[in-house]
Amino acid sequence: MAEKIKYALGIDLGGTSTKFGIVSNLGVILSKTSIPSNAELGPDEVISQIKKGIKQILAQKKAKIKGIGIGAPGVINNEKGTVEYPPNFPGWGRIKLGKIIQKEFGIKTLIENDANAAAIGEYIFGAGKKYNSFVMITLGTGVGGGIIFNNKIYRGEFGAAGELGHISINYKGPKCKCGSVGCIEAYIGINYLKQQVIKELQDNPGSKILELVNNEVDLITPRIIQEAMEKGDEFAKSVVENMGIQLGSVLTSVSNLLDISTFIIGGGVSGFGKPLINKIQKTIVERVFIPTKKRVKVLPAKLKNDAGIKGASALVFYKS
Amino acid sequence: MAEKIKYALGIDLGGTSTKFGIVSNLGVILSKTSIPSNAELGPDEVISQIKKGIKQILAQKKAKIKGIGIGAPGVINNEKGTVEYPPNFPGWGRIKLGKIIQKEFGIKTLIENDANAAAIGEYIFGAGKKYNSFVMITLGTGVGGGIIFNNKIYRGEFGAAGELGHISINYKGPKCKCGSVGCIEAYIGINYLKQQVIKELQDNPGSKILELVNNEVDLITPRIIQEAMEKGDEFAKSVVENMGIQLGSVLTSVSNLLDISTFIIGGGVSGFGKPLINKIQKTIVERVFIPTKKRVKVLPAKLKNDAGIKGASALVFYKS
Repeated sequence: MAEKIKYALGIDLGGTSTKFGIVSNLGVILSKTSIPSNAELGPDEVISQIKKGIKQILAQKKAKIKGIGIGAPGVINNEKGTVEYPPNFPGWGRIKLGKIIQKEFGIKTLIENDANAAAIGEYIFGAGKKYNSFVMITLGTGVGGGIIFNNKIYRGEFGAAGELGHISINYKGPKCKCGSVGCIEAYIGINYLKQQVIKELQDNPGSKILELVNNEVDLITPRIIQEAMEKGDEFAKSVVENMGIQLGSVLTSVSNLLDISTFIIGGGVSGFGKPLINKIQKTIVERVFIPTKKRVKVLPAKLKNDAGIKGASALVFYKS
Repeated sequence: MAEKIKYALGIDLGGTSTKFGIVSNLGVILSKTSIPSNAELGPDEVISQIKKGIKQILAQKKAKIKGIGIGAPGVINNEKGTVEYPPNFPGWGRIKLGKIIQKEFGIKTLIENDANAAAIGEYIFGAGKKYNSFVMITLGTGVGGGIIFNNKIYRGEFGAAGELGHISINYKGPKCKCGSVGCIEAYIGINYLKQQVIKELQDNPGSKILELVNNEVDLITPRIIQEAMEKGDEFAKSVVENMGIQLGSVLTSVSNLLDISTFIIGGGVSGFGKPLINKIQKTIVERVFIPTKKRVKVLPAKLKNDAGIKGASALVFYKS
């Protein structure tokens, strides 16, 4: 007898827009929508927008919803269902978002930090499906992450664990905006990376990167660097290799500390694709403890578009 | 009614000598002994020495032993009771040491990696008694550690977790003998530290360190550096402060990753005492995520002498 298909409503709360999707337990999106978060207007308005989006998507498709999952920025207390001081949400404080939504719609609502939700998404639907334990790192403007250990998300003492972007790779390195020194985010967070590339292009005036942006360095993106690399540009190649060494160094430390050897790389910067993944893998294998070397696996994330919605909906299918 | 006092036999298996002690559940040593491990003569001889030591100490004191705990180097599978490839034990491979001892004496035998046993020792008897979660770092020739999370030792996928000494603080730093680059052990492991101090003394010929060892730099120890510091030597002070920054950087990364904010510093180098502890604390508070800052606690280990025996016996009293 085939198992019955179940549905969840996944909500990806972002600083600019909030995305909603009805997702099956096979990870297929039935319908989706997106509305502005209006974060700058304060928490009441954000909550009202979330309710509006839920009504809208529930009206679109008459599926029986097993639960609502919300991925939100900031520190989440997932027992109390609270979201605390999410960055870029002024006036927020600590709000019981889970309970508010559950009460309004009478549907069980689960809430999780967005980086943890992304890891749970990969665990339920994506590259982590076959693994009991892995560490996910998400590369974007910020660098985040999530730890799945023994089929459970690791939350730490107060729900703030998994900040892979703020592991330092150089105790005398550049200041990070988090207040620490030499964090991996301060090297490969998109804005930091771009600044560094622009600086180094002064010594590499022949790079194809400059050609691709017509010398308008503000237009440089990970995609542009990748394109230059694919055209054989040596400088672009060195940028990606250097990122691979830096990420490999962080993940070696994580592996030595946690004895976890599967890593999933997600987010925008992971658009660098295979060359980046390969360099990360090579660096970890070179550096990690001998018994671990043969077990190291570095995998690209599988949930690309709609990773936020799918991760949030995965909370409903995930038995924690 | 007062609780009845219970006893355990703790065994600290070392490369040179193996130490045995009968320890009460209050952490008091009733009797102890030490015999050569004879590691160079192979595993059969080591096991025979362990049996000899056990017989010896059981003959000394006729206490009812609740269990035997063994702290051993190398990777331990504590379900199977195996010790795998302990460093400095030639010809060892993988041996079911736990079962062998349990069978011989008919006493329940538990086995754990020595760094984890040290953390469990602090958790049961020492500085970690009041905490549900903490990270211990042990400073010596090697730098090791153990993670207690939610009242349990965290072992990772294959029992090799907690290698705090091999978190890199500089991805372009000095080679570590583990094969990685810039590990904290490659900065503050006693031999590395000593080499660095000897090198830097060339630029600090007036340092009291040289005076204290009569210019015989081979005699430099953490204790000597501490003594010079206490006499107001600026160079010695800078050595300790630098160690504090390096250790603070590692523990900040660990805190951001694991959301654990209590740290216990053990081992020989921690003989630097308060100035080192204070500098570590200051560095973490400066660097760690804002919500964590107010929770950071850096504590010296409480089990000093016989920490190995007490940690091993704590395995018996610890409910994992």
